Amino acid sequence: MCEAPKYTIHNHQFHYGWDNALQPAERVAPGTTLAFQCNDAGGGHFKPGDTAAAVATLDFSKTNPVTGPVYVDGAAPGDALKVTFGGFTPSGVGWTANIPGFGLLADQFPDPALHMWSYDTGAAAPAAWGKARVPLKPFTGTIGNALAEPGQHSVVPPRQVGGNLDIRDLAEGTVLYLPVEVAGALFSVGDTHAAQGDGEVCGTAIESAMDVVLTLDLVKGANLKSPRFTTPGPVARHLDAKGYEVTTGVGPDLMANARGAVSAMIDLLTATHGLSPVDAYMLCSVCADLRISEIVDQPNWVVSLYFPRVVLD
Amino acid sequence: MCEAPKYTIHNHQFHYGWDNALQPAERVAPGTTLAFQCNDAGGGHFKPGDTAAAVATLDFSKTNPVTGPVYVDGAAPGDALKVTFGGFTPSGVGWTANIPGFGLLADQFPDPALHMWSYDTGAAAPAAWGKARVPLKPFTGTIGNALAEPGQHSVVPPRQVGGNLDIRDLAEGTVLYLPVEVAGALFSVGDTHAAQGDGEVCGTAIESAMDVVLTLDLVKGANLKSPRFTTPGPVARHLDAKGYEVTTGVGPDLMANARGAVSAMIDLLTATHGLSPVDAYMLCSVCADLRISEIVDQPNWVVSLYFPRVVLD
Repeated sequence: MCEAPKYTIHNHQFHYGWDNALQPAERVAPGTTLAFQCNDAGGGHFKPGDTAAAVATLDFSKTNPVTGPVYVDGAAPGDALKVTFGGFTPSGVGWTANIPGFGLLADQFPDPALHMWSYDTGAAAPAAWGKARVPLKPFTGTIGNALAEPGQHSVVPPRQVGGNLDIRDLAEGTVLYLPVEVAGALFSVGDTHAAQGDGEVCGTAIESAMDVVLTLDLVKGANLKSPRFTTPGPVARHLDAKGYEVTTGVGPDLMANARGAVSAMIDLLTATHGLSPVDAYMLCSVCADLRISEIVDQPNWVVSLYFPRVVLD
Repeated sequence: MCEAPKYTIHNHQFHYGWDNALQPAERVAPGTTLAFQCNDAGGGHFKPGDTAAAVATLDFSKTNPVTGPVYVDGAAPGDALKVTFGGFTPSGVGWTANIPGFGLLADQFPDPALHMWSYDTGAAAPAAWGKARVPLKPFTGTIGNALAEPGQHSVVPPRQVGGNLDIRDLAEGTVLYLPVEVAGALFSVGDTHAAQGDGEVCGTAIESAMDVVLTLDLVKGANLKSPRFTTPGPVARHLDAKGYEVTTGVGPDLMANARGAVSAMIDLLTATHGLSPVDAYMLCSVCADLRISEIVDQPNWVVSLYFPRVVLD
């Protein structure tokens, strides 16, 4: 945590979706450091002890509340909002669900499933689930600015101005640049995750409320087309010490290849570790990484899923 | 290098494409360790001192020669060939080209370009190109078994039995499992690379002849649908010490997103480091990684390109 926050945006100051008509929760000068209290993506719906039955009563229109918006003085369309990630203070409880109709293999996993996590709030120890030990790296799943287009826009899809990016390296020390489309940027953040693999394949991570400290600054006239970021150091050393089990999908369609690689990993984990298929799927979502190994050897591309061996070894 | 090779398959024992009617170069028992002398993907076409003009005379029908095939006694359809990677002995010279009509951004880079590399044969020091320093990790770009389908099949696309996978972690210590479709497997290997980023975005890596020691074994009745592998340890520590510059592509099509992320990185590298666009493109191909950050927040997905800062900092 670099600097003490000058403002706190509290967890009751949230909104659903993006709308540039929303009143700012706070108005700050460029360079200001703020604390954001972020709700989990279920808005507190899931409680310790809950089972899969609780998935059925989740109101999808009230998922992914984001804390904000914050108006940054001087921010104008064409600028970039520079977001520097300070420290995270995770709640120590979280959930991962298979939500029917949602996720990369929604057709193969039609039934709800839920795992409630309890983890070290310092995020120093891995989170346990049966014999699995998932290393943690808290980050913000949803982080973005308001869109120029009027009206309310769903929070689910990520956009050029950011939003539900679910990039697991938007973590402590990273510097993120987001395109600004409206005066003041109208920045909001939420959907904090204690851990996630690249892809978030089942659709949920270790969803967990937490506080995050961010510094908001401006790069005037950046004319950025989509988000970019800089990490200060390695991004996967919490996962890589024992190497990876890797499955592949080979063929002419990247989406089909990704699905094939994940299916193959579920088959491998169920065969070698006795996990149920849906548990293997949810475990991949919180720790395994989808990579595009090759995208030029036409007509077939290779997508690989890297499952960190440290989790089950 | 685990074991001394019992056989050497020499670099004149190569073939173009996959054909299950080819006579084996050698017939071995399961568990045998062999040395393979691999030609570079250009079959020796490019020489130190060559310029972009040499790209025009490359005969595409004679690219990607693979050394082999090797018949493994007892291998039958439904088995997996288990390939354990021993040591690599790189030649110390290599090439990276932009070949017109080939590569992720072929429409934007119609002109040939070539960079000839000279590098440490121990692969311990990074390879230099102007002010760029690219850490090396030798691996086999093309590695696979013959197809069940008769006739000659192009070596360019990877397939379920392997082939031109271009997975940069098929390196020393990795154990690879390849589906077997014909008696004896008819295994071949080539297209060795001194370094490559995930994606191989311009279509070529640091293409370089080298010798590789492999142990070939069998897993009977594995019924594997596509290649999988195990890495013995971390896969990116040669790249990650200083973190990454990351650009993103956000939208409903993974291929378009990948193209967007690479274009954004080329823009960034040309603006911040004064590289020419085609040099930036080729540099991304040899060291930057394409990752699928998010593939579930319908209708938009996020593909990210991770450029290791150690290369230019």
